[in-house]
Amino acid sequence: MVKIKIFSVGGTIDKVYFDKLSQYQVGFPSVRAILGSLPIAFRYEIESLLRKDSLDMDDADRELIRRHVAEESCRRIIITHGTDTMIETGKVLSDIAEKCVVLTGAMEPANFKSSDAVFNIGVAVGAVSSLSHGVHIAMNGRIFNPWRCRKNRDLGVFEEL
Amino acid sequence: MVKIKIFSVGGTIDKVYFDKLSQYQVGFPSVRAILGSLPIAFRYEIESLLRKDSLDMDDADRELIRRHVAEESCRRIIITHGTDTMIETGKVLSDIAEKCVVLTGAMEPANFKSSDAVFNIGVAVGAVSSLSHGVHIAMNGRIFNPWRCRKNRDLGVFEEL
Amino acid sequence: MVKIKIFSVGGTIDKVYFDKLSQYQVGFPSVRAILGSLPIAFRYEIESLLRKDSLDMDDADRELIRRHVAEESCRRIIITHGTDTMIETGKVLSDIAEKCVVLTGAMEPANFKSSDAVFNIGVAVGAVSSLSHGVHIAMNGRIFNPWRCRKNRDLGVFEEL
Amino acid sequence: MVKIKIFSVGGTIDKVYFDKLSQYQVGFPSVRAILGSLPIAFRYEIESLLRKDSLDMDDADRELIRRHVAEESCRRIIITHGTDTMIETGKVLSDIAEKCVVLTGAMEPANFKSSDAVFNIGVAVGAVSSLSHGVHIAMNGRIFNPWRCRKNRDLGVFEEL
Repeated sequence: MVKIKIFSVGGTIDKVYFDKLSQYQVGFPSVRAILGSLPIAFRYEIESLLRKDSLDMDDADRELIRRHVAEESCRRIIITHGTDTMIETGKVLSDIAEKCVVLTGAMEPANFKSSDAVFNIGVAVGAVSSLSHGVHIAMNGRIFNPWRCRKNRDLGVFEEL
Repeated sequence: MVKIKIFSVGGTIDKVYFDKLSQYQVGFPSVRAILGSLPIAFRYEIESLLRKDSLDMDDADRELIRRHVAEESCRRIIITHGTDTMIETGKVLSDIAEKCVVLTGAMEPANFKSSDAVFNIGVAVGAVSSLSHGVHIAMNGRIFNPWRCRKNRDLGVFEEL
Repeated sequence: MVKIKIFSVGGTIDKVYFDKLSQYQVGFPSVRAILGSLPIAFRYEIESLLRKDSLDMDDADRELIRRHVAEESCRRIIITHGTDTMIETGKVLSDIAEKCVVLTGAMEPANFKSSDAVFNIGVAVGAVSSLSHGVHIAMNGRIFNPWRCRKNRDLGVFEEL
Repeated sequence: MVKIKIFSVGGTIDKVYFDKLSQYQVGFPSVRAILGSLPIAFRYEIESLLRKDSLDMDDADRELIRRHVAEESCRRIIITHGTDTMIETGKVLSDIAEKCVVLTGAMEPANFKSSDAVFNIGVAVGAVSSLSHGVHIAMNGRIFNPWRCRKNRDLGVFEEL
């Protein structure tokens, strides 16, 4: 059976609101609740590596992600990540051979009624099950090469360079 | 830019409840509202061919679908379809060359809070954007060859034969 | 602390879709999941008396409901009920003294994203906590006397006679 | 027909996430979208007076709210408000005679799947339609006298003193 390994590192997709603090922080990996509530026919394992807004990630964080991806026995990997620096992380991973890695995230927290989280995770699952290898960004329903795309912050979409 | 043509033919994914009739019928293509509310970066066009429960589909219906798929200028095609006979329709389409066709649907109507519709449409989008050609079934987060899968009605999932 | 007894007897509010049967039946009391997921500061107990579409209810069913309401020790009672004959049941209960009973239901199943179920249950809770006694219908954000209202099936709303 | 005037002044109930700013601010009155999507049988008018987190409200803000409530021709009034200082505002309004005012809000933004917003607005509607006059707090499914309750920040619920 198909097996997919999922690493979660934070980002808007996992942001939750804490009334007591009157603020908004990265919480549990939302992909856990999303996949947990769906009729799924593939095996998967979710591992939380970080809980960071991607603007707060540094080289050490990206090296940690890279090490886990390189050492992972499973060939198909999805990474849920903040959208602001998802491309940087994609570039850092792009020399890992013989794996199919798809990074995704969301423009709105999974907890929002209007969130793109469930759709994006679906796109990532469809892509990682169909592509042979390489590192890819799955955002806004498109599959991008991290070296040839950028996040258009004004329009709130990823686009090809 | 990537363009995807989407044909909707009915199924549970589009079932809605009519209080006045105290019953449950196939309504508008739910994929319209689903994609319409998301930050999407590909062009798409939705065409409703039928509004049928797939148990009510016959050879004439499948021939209609086949004709539209064969004559469609767009290479990438998604079909939202009832899950009960999605595999039959997939087989009927499987000799169409030079297109990438992905059939999907849902076990629960898109209008349900717990529906798999959004996730499945995401998987179909990810698959049709990644696969080169051929006809595929995208259900339960897996991509299947219609000649080598079946719907396990007891478990409510599609599985490989 | 305030305590509310909730009887559920069926209706559209509790209708769920069974893919294996390709049909739609009254399921578990949805008020259980609705209140169970909210930060509630009153005590409540939910008892399922029936699981019927209210068009299928007969005098024996209404007598059963009446008996439970009359024998209930808690003064404040909410009944989740099908909308088609909610008024009939309200009339049957209207001679019970010294209780405050509010009947509510929904035009769309609680499981629907667009459902009025949560709002209606909220209205019923607000009403049963504010009214002194008597039997009332809480639908469409209004509180009605069951002897002076009707369900307008064409418009899908309850209105005063 | 019953008419209800609704003033919105901000609070968590209306907080939305802005990806571009990576932050979280009070947005449009969510009660507009909530009531707008339900089958409602009462007339209502929504007026936005402020868009403030209630921790940022001062005496001038409360005086502005008080003035609008006192001058409002409609007898039944709901105010959507931040939960942190809802009680203070309730006290400031409590000498207004001949009106029925119910303040409510939410512990989670209306935009959250798990939000208590819709339920709370329902409770407020049920209460303002049932109570004769006075100023009341409707939170956590309870109706409180603002002079005899407090917000328990640790438990995240309002409780009687």
